[in-house]
Order: sequence, then C-alpha cells, then structure tokens
Amino acid sequence: MFSVTVRDHMMIAHSFRGEVFGPAQRLHGATYVVDATFRRATLDADGIVVDIGRATEALHAVMAELNYRNLDDEPTFASENTTTEVLARFVADRLADRARAGDLGDGARELDGLVVTLRESHVAWASYERPL
Amino acid sequence: MFSVTVRDHMMIAHSFRGEVFGPAQRLHGATYVVDATFRRATLDADGIVVDIGRATEALHAVMAELNYRNLDDEPTFASENTTTEVLARFVADRLADRARAGDLGDGARELDGLVVTLRESHVAWASYERPL
Amino acid sequence: MFSVTVRDHMMIAHSFRGEVFGPAQRLHGATYVVDATFRRATLDADGIVVDIGRATEALHAVMAELNYRNLDDEPTFASENTTTEVLARFVADRLADRARAGDLGDGARELDGLVVTLRESHVAWASYERPL
Amino acid sequence: MFSVTVRDHMMIAHSFRGEVFGPAQRLHGATYVVDATFRRATLDADGIVVDIGRATEALHAVMAELNYRNLDDEPTFASENTTTEVLARFVADRLADRARAGDLGDGARELDGLVVTLRESHVAWASYERPL
Amino acid sequence: MFSVTVRDHMMIAHSFRGEVFGPAQRLHGATYVVDATFRRATLDADGIVVDIGRATEALHAVMAELNYRNLDDEPTFASENTTTEVLARFVADRLADRARAGDLGDGARELDGLVVTLRESHVAWASYERPL
Amino acid sequence: MFSVTVRDHMMIAHSFRGEVFGPAQRLHGATYVVDATFRRATLDADGIVVDIGRATEALHAVMAELNYRNLDDEPTFASENTTTEVLARFVADRLADRARAGDLGDGARELDGLVVTLRESHVAWASYERPL
Repeated sequence: MFSVTVRDHMMIAHSFRGEVFGPAQRLHGATYVVDATFRRATLDADGIVVDIGRATEALHAVMAELNYRNLDDEPTFASENTTTEVLARFVADRLADRARAGDLGDGARELDGLVVTLRESHVAWASYERPL
Repeated sequence: MFSVTVRDHMMIAHSFRGEVFGPAQRLHGATYVVDATFRRATLDADGIVVDIGRATEALHAVMAELNYRNLDDEPTFASENTTTEVLARFVADRLADRARAGDLGDGARELDGLVVTLRESHVAWASYERPL
Repeated sequence: MFSVTVRDHMMIAHSFRGEVFGPAQRLHGATYVVDATFRRATLDADGIVVDIGRATEALHAVMAELNYRNLDDEPTFASENTTTEVLARFVADRLADRARAGDLGDGARELDGLVVTLRESHVAWASYERPL
Repeated sequence: MFSVTVRDHMMIAHSFRGEVFGPAQRLHGATYVVDATFRRATLDADGIVVDIGRATEALHAVMAELNYRNLDDEPTFASENTTTEVLARFVADRLADRARAGDLGDGARELDGLVVTLRESHVAWASYERPL
Repeated sequence: MFSVTVRDHMMIAHSFRGEVFGPAQRLHGATYVVDATFRRATLDADGIVVDIGRATEALHAVMAELNYRNLDDEPTFASENTTTEVLARFVADRLADRARAGDLGDGARELDGLVVTLRESHVAWASYERPL
Repeated sequence: MFSVTVRDHMMIAHSFRGEVFGPAQRLHGATYVVDATFRRATLDADGIVVDIGRATEALHAVMAELNYRNLDDEPTFASENTTTEVLARFVADRLADRARAGDLGDGARELDGLVVTLRESHVAWASYERPL
C-alpha cells in the first residue's frame, strides 16, 4: 500500500457544549495543522499516488472554507461540537468529494482511502480514516 | 475510524542484558517522549473519542509510575529487558486497565484499541498496538 | 552565556483591527506553542540557570491567565491588537515580574534576560527578547 | 503488534517525465528524511523487534546506494520516475532483501512487515507498506 | 527586540567544487526548509514587526528564483559553491532588497536585521544574519 | 555572521544533589539531542563555515565520551551536578578544544564562537554559548 501526505493549517475560533469540556466551553480558538493522507494500492503510470501539487491545492481549498472563522457561526456545524475529531472527519469527507469529482486528477478516482490528522498543539492531535 | 493522541514524557535509567545491546548493556538512560493513541469507530454524543484532558491525566499517571527511576530496580521488570518495545507495551496495557476501570470516562469503554509510541531519540522509536 | 527553555501552549480566540490583517480581522483563533527562555551568565551553586520545574510552573501560570479565552474581551488588551508579537511581550513581561518577585527561586533574580517565542503554526512564529 | 522505526536521510538530484510534474520536470533535487518501520507480532527473547543498531546500519547501507547521486543516471530507475512513492518502495524492498538475508539478525526473519516513509519537505511525504 | 519568522522550502540540484566536499562533489540535490526572521526594536501602530502574509509572499518569491533548478546552471552562482551558508546569505540579501523596496510594507523599512536559516536535513542547517 | 549546526544525541544515567531537584535526586536518565552551532563572521574559500562532515564527526566523538554511561561514575563530573546546562558547557568546551587542535580543519581556527543546545525532552532544553 502506498500513501502521500500533504500539510496545511487553519486558525479558527469555537466553543464546546458539554461539561466534559471544562474551560473549553468558553469561546477560545485553535491552530490546526492538518495532514491529509491519500492511500492507494498501486501507483499510476507516472509513478504517483496523487499529484502532490493538486493534493495541496485541494486541501488548501477545504481549509479556506473554515480558516479565519468562528465555527460557532457556521451552519454546517450547528448540531455538533467542532471537536478535533469532528473537524478531521469534515476535512476527510470534503477531500473525498473532491477526489470523486476529479479535482485531484483522474487517477485519484482509484484512491483506496484517506486519513486526515489535525494537530491542535504539540501534545494533542486527532485523526479520521475512511475508505474512498 | 477515529483516533485521539496525547503526548507526555519520562526520564529513566536502565541497562540491558544480552550481547545484541553492545554498549547499552551498561547502565545508561533515556528520555521517552510517549504518544498514546486511543482508537474508536464512532464518536460519543459530545463528538469525541475520549476527553483529551482525562486521557492526558491517565497517561501522566502511568508515566509517574516509572518517571525519574532506575528501571533495573523495579520488580515489575525483573524478568525482562526494559526495551523501548517492552515499555510501549507496558504503557499500553496500563492505559487499557485504566480505560476499562472507567478512569477515562464511560465512553472510553467503547474504545476499539490503543497504540503507544515511545520516542527514544530524534532517530529511533517503537510502538505497540493492541485492541481494547 | 547559559539559557534554559521550557515549553507550554494556550488556545485563544481573537480578531485584529487594521486592513493589513485581511481575513484575520474576523474573529478566529490560534494555538500558541510558547517557549520561554531564561538567560544567565553564570550557573548557581546547583549548576542550573533556573529550576526547570519552577520555570514550567511559572510559564503555565502565565498561560492560565489567557488560555481558553477570547482575547477581544480582555481589558488588558483593550487598546492594542493581540498579535503574536504583542502576546510574546506580554508573556515575557509577566515572567519577568514573577522572576523579580522570587517565584522562580532566589537565583532567578540573577537572570540576565528572557526570550519568549510564540509559534502560531508550523510556518510562522514571533519572539520578544528583553533584559531582566 | 510491535514496531521499531529508525531514521536516516539522503540528498539526491533527479527530474520527472510527465506534464503532471510541472516545474519538477526540470533537473532539481531533494533531501529525503527516511523512516524505516519494522513490524512484528511478538518480541524475541531479548525483548526487541529488531536490533536498533543493526536496523540503523541496514538503512544507512541502502541510503548509501543512492546518496549524493543524480538518480536520472541510475540504471535501476531507467524505466520509471523516481517519485517519493517509487523511492519509498525501493528502500522497503531493499530492506526486505537484507532482512531475509539475515543482515538484521536471525530474529528479523520473523518480521511481519515494513513501512518506509520518505519526507521530501516539512509539508509533503510518502509511504510504502509491504509484508515480509 | 521583536522578531517574526516565516517558513517556506525549495528543492534544488547542485554540486560542489573542492576536496573537502567528498561525495558531495557529485551532482546531487537538497530540500532546503527556509526560515526567514525579521527583527525590529519596536512594533508598528498595528502591533506587528512585519505583515506575516507579506513576509510569506516575499520569501516565496525569493524561493521561486531557485526552486526546481540545477544551481550549477545559474549564472548568479557561477563563481562560488552553492553551500547552505552561501544560499542563506543569498536569500537574506534578496529579502533585504525587497524590504528596502517596500515590498514588505512601509513599516518594514524600519527593520533592524534579518536572519535566514536553511535546514538541509533533520541533522544539519546553516544561518546567515545581517543588519538591514 | 554565519553559522552551521549539526545534531547528534546521547543516552545517559545520572542523579542530582540538591533539594531543588525533587524526584530527579533519584538515579534516572535522559536522552540528550545535542545541537552544536559553529559561528564565523566570514566564509572560507570553499564557501563554508566548517565542513559539515568533520563537524558531525567531532560532535560524535565528544558524545562518545559520555554516551551509554552513568555520569555519576565519571570523575570529570565528580564535583558538580550533570545538569543540562553543565553538559552543554562540557560539550561546547570539548568542541572548542577540538577546533583549536585542528580536528575541524584549518579554517575552523577562524571560528568566532560556539553554541551547544541539549534537548532533554520535547518541552525543555538548555544552551551554552561561548567565544572561541
């Protein structure tokens, strides 16, 4: 199995509902350093999983939907906490949509899966892995 | 599949038995930067795999059993070398005990697995992965 | 010249005033990974610049004043943008107050200077350096 | 499942054939920071997956075949692009040959698999995973 | 003293003249992860050393002059080895030109100095520091 | 001013005398990731501060004096605590001796200074800077 990973980041505000979150129930924020991993069993004729340039642009486009925003105001997340886990799934699902739409090139339709990791600090991060 | 990872560290002395270890048969030491990853197929009602605060506390409590110690004097490891691999399993097993005992919250009983990685330097590390 | 550095982090929301900030004029947020460096020409009788444990606690106490907050609501910063540079100076000044008050131990009164670095992402950070 | 990872690097020149590569069709170069992960279900009698010293030497020997070279001149790669993915597979296959030949010790014949990751920058990397 | 640092990278081929370079006399290559630090005694009215967005663009523009190239073919470097040190000075001098030309904003004319660090691997890097 | 930095590491056991050290008064250990920075105002005729290969070998030779040892047993440190600060000075002084002895090449006699940083974990490190 092969994989290619590209990295970007976003800077957002949000708050959480639920006692488990303690002080994070207050409005605060985070820089998420985001790693998107594209997995594929075989390489294409050029010898790649996916074009790193296109993968970087696709990830950046997904980040741009959220970057420099207060996620508490985003209708997309009205019914759930924007935890690191939930945001990892959001990014992975958006990238999957783009891969299927051909934004990552024709070969990307043969991707087997995606993993998205969001690092919220030097001591905590979360991942979501899904098939494509 | 979702996962959440938290990081801590410990600083221990130890020595190894066996010619394969060369100069590491002498008493020496290590800083282990420890990453504990908690895996779960679905998120709980709060949108999390496990509470990062509780996971951090649980990992710190396990580290405290070993931190600032000479592992050659610890009865727990009397019959085996405290290699990076063995210590990764020890930390994972202790965290699994705590998860089952409810220390990580009720939701943590639905965890699917754990991965523990111990980094002994910038150029070498070991992991142990187990179901829960 | 000797120095000792300890690391912590904080997660805050804020917005900026001024066209130069572009989309960062919107309410957003950041994780700041904060490195506090304590400088001193000579070591004390124990062979240290400052006790790493006490330095870590002092840095954590300063972080706790800001962590999980919307800095737009903090009176301390009513008259200025909470840029990475401004926050680096705030943290350094607060640590200097604590060093002079003896929170870092008697020896810390002989510190020559402080440097505080705030990393806002994997590709951008800011520092403030001051004498003590 | 246990694993041990060791890190090395190499500095090579190369160019790519195919429009998808854009400016990377020109002769350029890369530092690849290479992580080789050795996986095994159980530990040997010494408590290890593989001797870290031997694993480091084996990885270094494989790197030495490519280090400080223009890969466009290497017959091994005459028929394919030396993408990060292709090089990850090359390194993994070479390490697998060495493991089977006994270069990593007798125990290494019980390895279950290998993962090789090549980091081409702080924002892009690729991996290849294979059984042994 | 304040500073702001931004990071980018470039991937180049080159070779060195001189016995001291050993195998690096052959055509090979490198990824340089480049950190550009802008230093200034006081902040401007917005509370910044330099606009991070503009600093990032300026650094990227300088990188683009060299990225994906064989530096052995660049007239700029005909009379010298393109060592990590020489390239650090080149990037710093080009950024200084841009700062003086106003590309980093009017405030950047008050910068006191620049430091440019090029990381050629996880175990080696070089810096050049200059006044402005 | 130019500088070149190379990285290595060592794994040692030790204990500290003095109440300030708390649990670190017990025998424990550390991995020190060591960065040695060589500073020089001008480059030599080859365009370098110091040969990175030779600098790496010199640092490795200094590390070998301490690596895989219990520093409590080393006569060199009989009269002082082997704190991170003290060890940074030890490494810097040993490298200065080697530079003056010509081990780093003739050009290294024109070095202006050295900085040695020892990272004891992902959240704490110490440095010592000296002229040459």
